[in-house]
Amino acid sequence: MGLFITIEGAEGSGKTTVCKKVTDKLNQEGYKVLYTREPGGVKIAEQIRDIILDVKNTELDARSEALLYAASRRQHLVEKIEPALKEGYIIICDRFIDSSLAYQGYARGIGIDEVYEINMFAINHRLPDATILLDIPPEEGLKRINKHRGFEMNRLDLEQLSFHLKVHEGYEILKKKYANRFVIVDANQTPEKVFNAVYDIIIKKCKEYQLCNNSKNI
Amino acid sequence: MGLFITIEGAEGSGKTTVCKKVTDKLNQEGYKVLYTREPGGVKIAEQIRDIILDVKNTELDARSEALLYAASRRQHLVEKIEPALKEGYIIICDRFIDSSLAYQGYARGIGIDEVYEINMFAINHRLPDATILLDIPPEEGLKRINKHRGFEMNRLDLEQLSFHLKVHEGYEILKKKYANRFVIVDANQTPEKVFNAVYDIIIKKCKEYQLCNNSKNI
Repeated sequence: MGLFITIEGAEGSGKTTVCKKVTDKLNQEGYKVLYTREPGGVKIAEQIRDIILDVKNTELDARSEALLYAASRRQHLVEKIEPALKEGYIIICDRFIDSSLAYQGYARGIGIDEVYEINMFAINHRLPDATILLDIPPEEGLKRINKHRGFEMNRLDLEQLSFHLKVHEGYEILKKKYANRFVIVDANQTPEKVFNAVYDIIIKKCKEYQLCNNSKNI
Repeated sequence: MGLFITIEGAEGSGKTTVCKKVTDKLNQEGYKVLYTREPGGVKIAEQIRDIILDVKNTELDARSEALLYAASRRQHLVEKIEPALKEGYIIICDRFIDSSLAYQGYARGIGIDEVYEINMFAINHRLPDATILLDIPPEEGLKRINKHRGFEMNRLDLEQLSFHLKVHEGYEILKKKYANRFVIVDANQTPEKVFNAVYDIIIKKCKEYQLCNNSKNI
């Protein structure tokens, strides 16, 4: 029945890079693996995202936004993730419900438990088999964002800074609250070490779920 | 702080006609009254409705649909209903959360309690002050729909028939479950009698909420 892995972390944690590298590596080793992130090329999920990201929609309420993310997630799950899981794929999903919990639930102040409820409705209790959190001190995450954006740390907008800190606090709460599902990776290491840690976690889960690669057939 | 009335009922119960007549009458009597129905001319709510009603979106999942209705409802509530309530208006809202409970929750089989949860998130516990259910035997509702559509009852698609019966059953459950909030009107009477019954309920609520008309100033 496949393996459903989600990768989480604040901006600057290096999620997307490591997701892609791990997917490539597993592919090379003969695993059936699918990298995805919402809206994942699913037409209805994209239509929903267009509403959320439309800069003209300044009146969009935080709760409406959270409901729209949940609707987009649902559609991505039923159209893309669940069919691939049935075919035995390893899914590497770049952000999933925990991003909504950290960003909308905690940082925007709606409440983690309330946002969890609507997301449980959306995923119909289909939680990830494991959630890998790329954990990075907020100041280090900020440095990386700024470096990437090409301007100095002190130019960072104060609201943006405080929001970034809140997202980090949100993930701190989540990793304690959902300790059974979360696996923590120290993202304040070299990219090579982060990659190895994430790769090892996934291989261990593959064994636990008795997922084999097809290397013998290659 | 105004008065928030929602009108519910299966198709063929005559909701829209009675909503408009009551609104006109209250208006003539000098009450501040606003008739609305989702998406209510609210731009973001309309964009969300476009996704739900797009005939090309055949893959739309029932839970995604319920989340989209909830998001549309939220936006209509915060942009249109709540500001008018603050100005002391009587709101006559043609369908609200109970339509989602009867249609998506019960008739589509998601579950009334589950759909209730996401709607409570959407309305942030701002339930209507009263919900008037226009109660009609399902066979009478069907007759009216068919008469309106201009074809015979036996031409009605069987799936449509069974869905209509399920919606009716859903409302039967809701009127018991939320007996404190629901006020039942027998819609199997002359339009005049239905109108009078709805009007009387609203006037009674106005007194209870100490809402006056401006007739003395006219």
